[in-house]
Amino acid sequence: MSLPTRFDWVLLQEFCANVFKKAGLKKQNAELVADSLIQADLRGVDSHGVVRTSIYLKRIEEGMINPAADIEVEKESDSTALVNGNNQIGSVVGVNALKVALKKAKENGVALVGVKNSNHFGTGAYYLLKAIEQNMILLVMSNASQTMPPTGGVRPFLGTNPLAVGVPAGDAVPYILDMATSLVARGKIIVASQKGEEIPLGWAIDKDGNPTTNAEAALEGSVLPVGGPKGYAISMFIDILSGVLTGAGFGKYVNNMYENWEQPQNVGHFFIAIDINKFIPIELFKQRMDQYISEIKAEPKAPNVDEILIPGEIEHRRVIYKKANGIELPSKVVKELQEIAQKYGLDLSQAIFNQKNKEVTK
Amino acid sequence: MSLPTRFDWVLLQEFCANVFKKAGLKKQNAELVADSLIQADLRGVDSHGVVRTSIYLKRIEEGMINPAADIEVEKESDSTALVNGNNQIGSVVGVNALKVALKKAKENGVALVGVKNSNHFGTGAYYLLKAIEQNMILLVMSNASQTMPPTGGVRPFLGTNPLAVGVPAGDAVPYILDMATSLVARGKIIVASQKGEEIPLGWAIDKDGNPTTNAEAALEGSVLPVGGPKGYAISMFIDILSGVLTGAGFGKYVNNMYENWEQPQNVGHFFIAIDINKFIPIELFKQRMDQYISEIKAEPKAPNVDEILIPGEIEHRRVIYKKANGIELPSKVVKELQEIAQKYGLDLSQAIFNQKNKEVTK
Ligand SMILES: NC(=O)c1ccc[n+]([C@@H]2O[C@H](COP(=O)([O-])OP(=O)(O)OC[C@H]3O[C@@H](n4cnc5c(N)ncnc54)[C@H](O)[C@@H]3O)[C@@H](O)[C@H]2O)c1
Ligand SMILES: NC(=O)c1ccc[n+]([C@@H]2O[C@H](COP(=O)([O-])OP(=O)(O)OC[C@H]3O[C@@H](n4cnc5c(N)ncnc54)[C@H](O)[C@@H]3O)[C@@H](O)[C@H]2O)c1
Repeated sequence: MSLPTRFDWVLLQEFCANVFKKAGLKKQNAELVADSLIQADLRGVDSHGVVRTSIYLKRIEEGMINPAADIEVEKESDSTALVNGNNQIGSVVGVNALKVALKKAKENGVALVGVKNSNHFGTGAYYLLKAIEQNMILLVMSNASQTMPPTGGVRPFLGTNPLAVGVPAGDAVPYILDMATSLVARGKIIVASQKGEEIPLGWAIDKDGNPTTNAEAALEGSVLPVGGPKGYAISMFIDILSGVLTGAGFGKYVNNMYENWEQPQNVGHFFIAIDINKFIPIELFKQRMDQYISEIKAEPKAPNVDEILIPGEIEHRRVIYKKANGIELPSKVVKELQEIAQKYGLDLSQAIFNQKNKEVTK
Repeated sequence: MSLPTRFDWVLLQEFCANVFKKAGLKKQNAELVADSLIQADLRGVDSHGVVRTSIYLKRIEEGMINPAADIEVEKESDSTALVNGNNQIGSVVGVNALKVALKKAKENGVALVGVKNSNHFGTGAYYLLKAIEQNMILLVMSNASQTMPPTGGVRPFLGTNPLAVGVPAGDAVPYILDMATSLVARGKIIVASQKGEEIPLGWAIDKDGNPTTNAEAALEGSVLPVGGPKGYAISMFIDILSGVLTGAGFGKYVNNMYENWEQPQNVGHFFIAIDINKFIPIELFKQRMDQYISEIKAEPKAPNVDEILIPGEIEHRRVIYKKANGIELPSKVVKELQEIAQKYGLDLSQAIFNQKNKEVTK
């Protein structure tokens, strides 16, 4: 029997938490991983939502992730720390490293925390939101396995290493930049290929390094960095801070989680947390942010543009909409989750979205 | 009499230092500003070289920059500082803020230094090189006066706010990313317009917000951020850290140095300095950087690509070439410098490049 494809976010999160508990994670960690996946779905970053459940489980089963590992602070000073994830699941490592960063930043004004021996940590926004709640500015970076060539190269060398920056505001929606360093996500090329559509020139190169508009050829080749050498350079410094500086993998030493079943990923992350009060009083800062944001949003608009948006605003609206209207999943993902439910004796159907007095207009 | 247009970098730097002394700067500061301009010319970032001499002088003369100002640390903790530039010339403010950052990073592992009441500070690379000499990783940002619209906007709101990151290496040329957050520098559009050439779609919009390939129309309009919303978002967070957080101007409150003769610019900067040893031993880090760089450079190359380059490598080679072969200046700039020389009773001709046993092949 195939299930409907719209799910209640709270119940789906509970379901996922139960799955990860069955897979051997401690209750707290299972809930954390589920929270991180559901947040991504709510924000519309579907590529980093519950779609990742099956690969995380598979890596745990194959011994490629250690769900029992303790996360250690290996080296520290007042404002810095080097965290060893000991191959725990990525979002658990990330949240623990973030806690260290926020604590140090509160005590000493700023903290830089490098992380090694981690895994795919999901979206950057997940960490930003926690920092913003505590009135902190946060920069988060992570390296990732190879998908992008350097400028002039032919084959993947760098990851689409994400850069994320979160900044609290007063009444305005907080500023949340959370981006891959590729021009577009590989997922968009997959969609074009499925629809048999061409992709714009500049998105990708084919496997011989030639620019291509053919989505199939692009998938065999590589996605390109945002803005040519500028995106390449940004992706590279994320790799330097997350990998070269921490002792994690970098370049080809960050293993692909879908392809490498011999070794852990050895992903690295880097967090910079800033206590705003060390510069100006938080209330004044929030006023200035609100003013800044309202001035940008009031700018005259180009033809056919409805609204000027702040980074993070689109995703913020999606969260409100999906909390009220459910999270729509591709039927392929529902099928995967059903198989997982069966395996662990859980019931996915309990998480199906229930229309009653919840629907709101988009 | 019009002079030749090729100059010896050491003598031209001396000339510029003398100019700024005559204009009222202390010897040390005059030498610093001259050094910053010549470094930009040597690196081939001509837009930030001695071409800026006349505008800096004009702002000093008009009382828009205070060459006698003391730079103050207004607020500080072990790893943070808020520096008030008191409207001193930008590169002098920048170098003094950098000193505070490097000192604190040495003592405490990391430093975040915000700067307000500053002016145009030249290239980011100038500061990176000084940090690299001291084995430090440095991130530098600055806001700038309005030239780019937000995504969906029509008219300039953000500056081309530069992002610069410097990382030491061992034997390899150090990593130096130093970029404007626009797709291309406005200077390239000026060149296209002078040559009567079209510009590629995506570089700029006309004054009504429509994409344009007409260079003239682009100059009346705005340059676009690198990578659309991603560049817009990066430029915005640079403005937040440099301006909103420090108390400097942001958005429209960063005054244009060519157009506003009523008020100081009130530019803000932000420095993040990292002591590598707080994470891994510097010698190991340098080995890892050398390995990383040599692995990228050894990647297979796309058709018609001679070499894969590391950020900063092009500029590094230009420095070597220009130190040996002289700095070529546009005749318009030579004329401006000659007028300045006359005004102050200095002799520009002494700085002309002297062929004798200096020429090397490119
Ligand atoms: N963990 C990993 O290895 C990894 C790797 C790559 C990407 N990711 C994640 O993938 C996600 C998606 O990345 P992406 O680059 O495809 O995102 P995207 O291109 O959809 O959005 C990038 C950013 O731009 C903002 N934005 C988009 N349009 C805008 C507009 N018109 N006005 C203002 N702001 C606008 C968004 O709010 C967002 O902050 C991120 O969550 C990232 O963390 C993770
Ligand atoms: N002070 C200010 O207000 C201000 C404002 C904007 C820009 N700037 C300065 O302007 C300068 C120029 O900026 P830009 O964006 O035009 O520079 P650019 O586009 O020429 O170069 C940007 C970066 O990319 C690297 N790069 C370029 N091609 C490469 C390749 N093929 N492979 C690897 N790396 C490559 C360069 O080494 C450089 O680090 C910078 O020095 C910047 O600091 C200053």
